[in-house]
Amino acid sequence: MAITNRIENFRMEVNEAFLAKAEALAPSLIETAVPPAGAVEIVPAGQDYAAREVCRGFSRSRPLGRGDSVCLDFGDHRVGYISFTLAPVGSPPDAPAYLRLKFGEIPYEIAADLSHYQGEVSRSWLQEEFIHVDVLPAQVRLPRRYAFRYLEITVLDTSPKYQVVVGDVACTAVTSADRSAVPPLKTADPELAALDRASLKTMEDCMQSVFEDGPKRDRRLWIADLRLQALTNYVTFRNNDLVKRCLYLFAALTQNGGRVGACLFMEPRPQVDDTALFDYSLFFVSCLHDYYEATGDKETLAELYPTAKRQLELALAELDGRGIVSDRDSWWCFLDWGDGLNKQAGAQAILIYTLKQGVKLARRLGAEADATRYEAEIQSASQAALEQLWDSGKGFFLSGAGRQVSWASQVWFVLAGVFPQEENIRLLERLMEQNPGVPLATPYAYHYFIQALMENGLTEQAVAAMKGYWGEMLREGADTFWELFDPNDRYASPYGSRAVNSFCHAWSSTPSYFIRNYLDG
Amino acid sequence: MAITNRIENFRMEVNEAFLAKAEALAPSLIETAVPPAGAVEIVPAGQDYAAREVCRGFSRSRPLGRGDSVCLDFGDHRVGYISFTLAPVGSPPDAPAYLRLKFGEIPYEIAADLSHYQGEVSRSWLQEEFIHVDVLPAQVRLPRRYAFRYLEITVLDTSPKYQVVVGDVACTAVTSADRSAVPPLKTADPELAALDRASLKTMEDCMQSVFEDGPKRDRRLWIADLRLQALTNYVTFRNNDLVKRCLYLFAALTQNGGRVGACLFMEPRPQVDDTALFDYSLFFVSCLHDYYEATGDKETLAELYPTAKRQLELALAELDGRGIVSDRDSWWCFLDWGDGLNKQAGAQAILIYTLKQGVKLARRLGAEADATRYEAEIQSASQAALEQLWDSGKGFFLSGAGRQVSWASQVWFVLAGVFPQEENIRLLERLMEQNPGVPLATPYAYHYFIQALMENGLTEQAVAAMKGYWGEMLREGADTFWELFDPNDRYASPYGSRAVNSFCHAWSSTPSYFIRNYLDG
Repeated sequence: MAITNRIENFRMEVNEAFLAKAEALAPSLIETAVPPAGAVEIVPAGQDYAAREVCRGFSRSRPLGRGDSVCLDFGDHRVGYISFTLAPVGSPPDAPAYLRLKFGEIPYEIAADLSHYQGEVSRSWLQEEFIHVDVLPAQVRLPRRYAFRYLEITVLDTSPKYQVVVGDVACTAVTSADRSAVPPLKTADPELAALDRASLKTMEDCMQSVFEDGPKRDRRLWIADLRLQALTNYVTFRNNDLVKRCLYLFAALTQNGGRVGACLFMEPRPQVDDTALFDYSLFFVSCLHDYYEATGDKETLAELYPTAKRQLELALAELDGRGIVSDRDSWWCFLDWGDGLNKQAGAQAILIYTLKQGVKLARRLGAEADATRYEAEIQSASQAALEQLWDSGKGFFLSGAGRQVSWASQVWFVLAGVFPQEENIRLLERLMEQNPGVPLATPYAYHYFIQALMENGLTEQAVAAMKGYWGEMLREGADTFWELFDPNDRYASPYGSRAVNSFCHAWSSTPSYFIRNYLDG
Repeated sequence: MAITNRIENFRMEVNEAFLAKAEALAPSLIETAVPPAGAVEIVPAGQDYAAREVCRGFSRSRPLGRGDSVCLDFGDHRVGYISFTLAPVGSPPDAPAYLRLKFGEIPYEIAADLSHYQGEVSRSWLQEEFIHVDVLPAQVRLPRRYAFRYLEITVLDTSPKYQVVVGDVACTAVTSADRSAVPPLKTADPELAALDRASLKTMEDCMQSVFEDGPKRDRRLWIADLRLQALTNYVTFRNNDLVKRCLYLFAALTQNGGRVGACLFMEPRPQVDDTALFDYSLFFVSCLHDYYEATGDKETLAELYPTAKRQLELALAELDGRGIVSDRDSWWCFLDWGDGLNKQAGAQAILIYTLKQGVKLARRLGAEADATRYEAEIQSASQAALEQLWDSGKGFFLSGAGRQVSWASQVWFVLAGVFPQEENIRLLERLMEQNPGVPLATPYAYHYFIQALMENGLTEQAVAAMKGYWGEMLREGADTFWELFDPNDRYASPYGSRAVNSFCHAWSSTPSYFIRNYLDG
């Protein structure tokens, strides 16, 4: 995600005790040696590129001189470290070897000429390295971690007197996800099995020291991603301590006034980013709620409840005189990527949604006064929404001064349960039938749409939507689910180049959650 | 030097005892911390570029974002390692920093767009690095050694949320040359003092684990370079053990049949290159001769004399039925860079020249039979040269089937002493007056021209030629003497780009030798 808002006079507030708990929960990473599955060549395929097999397996390259290259296929998406040997052939090497390495989650990243990249997010995310090897033969170990299926090694130069042979290419894949903890799937539906497989791989490759949003980019703990990863984790890898660690991290490292930040950095030391998002702060409540539901860990609930409570307080302070969350021009609330999406209605719904989770948490802890207060707030916020945002003529919630209709607003009001179920069902059916206004943009927003369908018994439509959207990524050749996918604009990027899109992204990994939670009983 | 000949069925013959002696003589390197003298900008200056001072001294840069750069001037030519700190400014860094570093011995290397380099020698010699820094703040230490005066650090990208400040830039310069061993210069001539100063710096920066030809490129022990470095060393740094080490290395690691190779590599282990050059093999005799003259080290002479003898035997076997060294189409003898230069006459002269040194060495060791034989060979090779190569009408030696007149041929026949001194003087004067045929191309060939003038008492002309040629490099802004310099074509390169020329090159460091040996008494 590339959001450039930042809060004024930003400072980090640190709870050392929480931080120590989080650090004590740091997982050890599981390392797996992965040899290349074979060599490929990247060829044009329609508007895109594809990998065409050259040979199965790979022990060493032919001798490579100036301009020669070899492209390896590691058979599936990988996150890890690369090493290889470089042996000279010919005369004793009379000049360094100069190599370019390109790592690609998809073939396009190998094919693209990255030299003129001018996209919005940093070109430092492009997985391309230029290295000199002064002494040959050499064992080359790249110190950085990469996310990739394809690795192209191009010899930019040796010298007229020698060439090099690339051999012993090894990937050490890393994850904190334990495959053996995943319950077997029961379904006989091959489409669902395929969706589950790609979800698990996406999850696995994002589970590192924390739940990362994407192992290529941003490699960071974003709380909205965490929420979906955690939900999926409870029915797959069941690494509940990793969720607990992330909860403690968010609670330990807050922004001015105890606000939970949108994301955290782990290096060089754990710290909270200066990005604040209305919905993201509230998702701390959701994360804690889900964690308690999954684990029954009341000690953690009790310790972290004040942080959740603080997020609700901060959000409630944003209500205007009408009882509606104040709209702003800035990037104050995420909801979805989507050109011109207004966030006000969605924010209002998410406030109600998380207040309801807050009631449950408060009751669990016997904090009856909080629960009663939240119930009153739910009542008034819902009432205000119906009076100010609901257009009974159109049958949709409207957002912002422009009275915008968007899918995101409707989905979140369904999830907030402002209407009874029958009304929710009609709203969802109307939405699908009329397809009004701003559509959903990301797998993240699609998740909540599927969730809304599932919760309201529209299972058939949910499965069809899931198979349509995530299934289409698989038909496009995805090994892991992508950060961004628009079936109507397949090569889109909000960043100025598809090469910096993340093709293994946490918020897209929830088919496993739906399959295992709703369909695989 | 870029020579791509290679001998057939090449194999290395190793004398382990000699190798052990060489290794025992490995010098420890002297490290010196060198801060930047200031920041500069590289600006066009005529057909070239110049460094314009921006500020004196440098502690840290302003904050640098995408596309910003800083160029540092280390005040003089440096050989060593670079480290610096990179501190973020703004929001917590949400993407790696991506930097390009360019090192330049001269401003042109900084200004040149190197991305389209297609020159003959490897582009791997271009001193340009692309590095990602994942965690900030960072202490960046580049593992490779560079030869440079200028260092440009360009921030290719950070992110829209942060910039970086470059600070604590440090160069750790390395050399095995000890400045304190250099005798003070007596001359009051500022031109000679300036030539001496640049020679010493050139020597210093080429003196590493061995005498390198150039610390930027090829970083290698070439025997023709060694010969001139050693001569200069005896009257400057006086690190005679480093010469001894190099002699043992060449004798320890020979090519098929005991031939001394043109150059040696030191990494990953000492080994001889597969390049054989007629003149270079013979220069082992010269190197040993000079070493003994400088040191009187008879033990080394006795141990290495068989290697010298072998080179003379191999060379004598190349004589044709007329007693003239056989000409070949390949790069079989160096003499000089120079388009179309025929090597036959020069090779014949160098054979006579080194046979005369061989006689002296043999007599020192009481090897009278060798001495007598060499004298006979000198007699017949000189006679053959006068009969077959000397054109008394033209007054020049001719070379090859094309009967080419070149400066190199005349210079080497003067040095070989085929004529008595009066005749040599007339030949040199005729050469300078008529300027016939193929001119001298490199400082290496100029050295022997100056040497020929000096030995024949043409001191005034020698000094004028030296001040004209090397002095012109200084007027062009040289800190150290260049591998290549053509006053008539100042931006020439035999490699396809001046950026890979070496601007600190051993074979150009002999002004100090001439000044201290002939002029500073």
